[in-house]
Amino acid sequence: MADKVEPRLPRGMRDILPRQMALRQYVIDVIRDVFERFGYEPLSTPSVELHETLAGKYGPDAERMIYNVSRSGSKEKLALRYDLSVPLSRVVAMYPELQKPFKRYQIAPVWRGERPGKGRYREFYQCDVDTVGTASMLADAELLQITYELLNRLGFPQFVMKMNNRKILTGIGQFAGVPGELLGGLYRSIDKLDKIGLEGVREELKANDIPDAVAGRLLELLQISGDDRSLLGELEGRLAEYPTAVEGIGELSEILDYLEALHIPAERYQVDFSMVRGLDYYTGPIFETVVEEPRIGSISGGGRYDELIGMFTDRSYPATGTSFGIERIFDVMEELHMFPAEVGTANTRVLVTVFDAARIGDSLRVSDNLRRAGLNTELYFENDPLGAQIRHALKRSIPYVIIVGPDEASAGQVTIRYLPLKEQRTVEAAAMIDHLKDWGGMIGT
Amino acid sequence: MADKVEPRLPRGMRDILPRQMALRQYVIDVIRDVFERFGYEPLSTPSVELHETLAGKYGPDAERMIYNVSRSGSKEKLALRYDLSVPLSRVVAMYPELQKPFKRYQIAPVWRGERPGKGRYREFYQCDVDTVGTASMLADAELLQITYELLNRLGFPQFVMKMNNRKILTGIGQFAGVPGELLGGLYRSIDKLDKIGLEGVREELKANDIPDAVAGRLLELLQISGDDRSLLGELEGRLAEYPTAVEGIGELSEILDYLEALHIPAERYQVDFSMVRGLDYYTGPIFETVVEEPRIGSISGGGRYDELIGMFTDRSYPATGTSFGIERIFDVMEELHMFPAEVGTANTRVLVTVFDAARIGDSLRVSDNLRRAGLNTELYFENDPLGAQIRHALKRSIPYVIIVGPDEASAGQVTIRYLPLKEQRTVEAAAMIDHLKDWGGMIGT
Repeated sequence: MADKVEPRLPRGMRDILPRQMALRQYVIDVIRDVFERFGYEPLSTPSVELHETLAGKYGPDAERMIYNVSRSGSKEKLALRYDLSVPLSRVVAMYPELQKPFKRYQIAPVWRGERPGKGRYREFYQCDVDTVGTASMLADAELLQITYELLNRLGFPQFVMKMNNRKILTGIGQFAGVPGELLGGLYRSIDKLDKIGLEGVREELKANDIPDAVAGRLLELLQISGDDRSLLGELEGRLAEYPTAVEGIGELSEILDYLEALHIPAERYQVDFSMVRGLDYYTGPIFETVVEEPRIGSISGGGRYDELIGMFTDRSYPATGTSFGIERIFDVMEELHMFPAEVGTANTRVLVTVFDAARIGDSLRVSDNLRRAGLNTELYFENDPLGAQIRHALKRSIPYVIIVGPDEASAGQVTIRYLPLKEQRTVEAAAMIDHLKDWGGMIGT
Repeated sequence: MADKVEPRLPRGMRDILPRQMALRQYVIDVIRDVFERFGYEPLSTPSVELHETLAGKYGPDAERMIYNVSRSGSKEKLALRYDLSVPLSRVVAMYPELQKPFKRYQIAPVWRGERPGKGRYREFYQCDVDTVGTASMLADAELLQITYELLNRLGFPQFVMKMNNRKILTGIGQFAGVPGELLGGLYRSIDKLDKIGLEGVREELKANDIPDAVAGRLLELLQISGDDRSLLGELEGRLAEYPTAVEGIGELSEILDYLEALHIPAERYQVDFSMVRGLDYYTGPIFETVVEEPRIGSISGGGRYDELIGMFTDRSYPATGTSFGIERIFDVMEELHMFPAEVGTANTRVLVTVFDAARIGDSLRVSDNLRRAGLNTELYFENDPLGAQIRHALKRSIPYVIIVGPDEASAGQVTIRYLPLKEQRTVEAAAMIDHLKDWGGMIGT
């Protein structure tokens, strides 16, 4: 074996210890449940893709953050996946026999060599839900419905699902007279409206070589205000000569119809022409959910990408999807104690103590019975004094301790101690399970 | 964006499509449940470790199969994890504050550049359960108890948990007079007894430069037969002068005590002095489970490794664990149709059809009600004829279809069709959920 090495982690990577894992598992189980409730099915793709599969999909800044994978003796150029959308597109192109619409979810790690920071890791989970093979706005509206359901289930009281449409942004660019090659800069400037205000955007546009007159026309559009329907109506009037914009406005209007039919409260969604989303590949409606209480910014984002899959196949597949920032959801829920009480404590409910070496068999059988009754049960392994065994249960946040001493054994009994209330009962061994289930309310399996 | 690329996978990697994923998820959920039932907690470590953390732990053959990870602009030498034991050892060394015994499980992918073959992939899941910080044989016996419970829950009717002890193998080497540097070759030869028989092992030993007289003494020991207790007794008599062997025999004998106290059927476990396990780092009891019906060989393996964690820290931590070959478990259960009936079909139970564009709102509300009642429900997205919508449900193995046409809508009713029996009922909309829950038995949520 090798020399001793210092136990260290790579920069930006982390371990997730049991208590955190239990919280993450809770969130992931809720998300899985919501996705499956809407008819989406799980997909798994390998962490390692061919480098050529990822190359050229994310833009040059992202490309630098991709991890390369290699092995001595192999010439394959490999890479760790950077997101879950490109692998999904590869899958759809590779298996044309998949029944459409293909509704899939994937909850899995991705790797990005970003500068590490608070809540920012180089290996982190993404959580994507997508529908491939339909151009219907019902699929886009369903993404908002899922977001609404999910954030409610997780207990977020205040959030707004913002929506816009890349077709509207294209139309706005046409209206303002911005040449195609400057559209990217235009989008980036508009996207900052929330942060830097109208005057800030004006400065940005100037710095990006967009003429003052053009900037003026653009800012005029961004100042339209009102409820969603009147926003869309006003914009449709002004952009009536730009068919792409009109199409985009029609799509958002259809999505509003569906959200209204579902009685989703109007304060939970909002048309926002200044919301852009960073990625190049969006082609239609785009979404972003901003959590306002607690004020933590964007927690999900996505949109329609009708052309991405075409990068892998001659067939065309319209597609739409959204991604939840579950790392941020974990962090926020933990900071704000949003987890149900039973999730924050150990999964293990009962510790069975061992009185002495001669009575190990009794303790083994008692723990076996508890497990058969569905109770998560730890058997104490050492021949320690009872006090040390109880301290172990306290440190592990295990609420119930079972004691099977010689008195109990000869009387066919066990003693149950409920640590949070320092209560203790000696009961018939046969009635142990019933006593545990009746008592304390913390025993839920 | 980049040029079109052919959608391909790296050699030895694979996608797992929804139907397979549902089966895998079922197995993983059962395993998680069993592990937590015994008081083990989940741990997550990053897929990417420092290369120095893995180097020198697995032997030169394995080392060649490790994947290297790098990124332009970073000098860190990184690697994809090769197993879950070395990362666990690093974690225990890094966080000495973890309460002991530290009972953790981890179900996660590992990467090995092996030659791909049937059921052999370069990215595959490992499923490990370990106890760190106790030398008690109760921890080792519990691993067998977990194995027994798990294979029963998954429905394997015939299996044998074999056990041996590295201390006994060391004692056998001493008894036979094999010098330390030849012990590795000795173990490898003995390990083949099942496959090549006594004479085969004699040839192997000869090829490994072990003198005939030594080989003779060794083979004599391997021929001892009888039940577990008499095997141990006989061996203890012959190896009485070798304290390491006597200690190992005592440990197995203690494990037998515990298995008997738990009434685990004696045909489910067996002492086998020729079972060796490949890895260098074992120091005490070792285990391997062989499934005999279906005859698929080893399905779990593990043992005590009291010195591995010491490669990362000056403190000493006794530890024991076992690993389940869940990839093989998936494959076998699928081939032999061992999954419960409801696991093999789609998770989605109901398809809500759309009659025409004007009635989408009705279909949206009906699907919303079904989901609130806990039924996994897909809404059909296109404006297709009813026949096409029903064919979609058949292809997706969705058993129930809901039809809300103009007649139904004006009468406050819905039509439910149960596809497996081609039955159909028109019922009051308010009673839809009750009808679905009463009917067919396939609706279970």
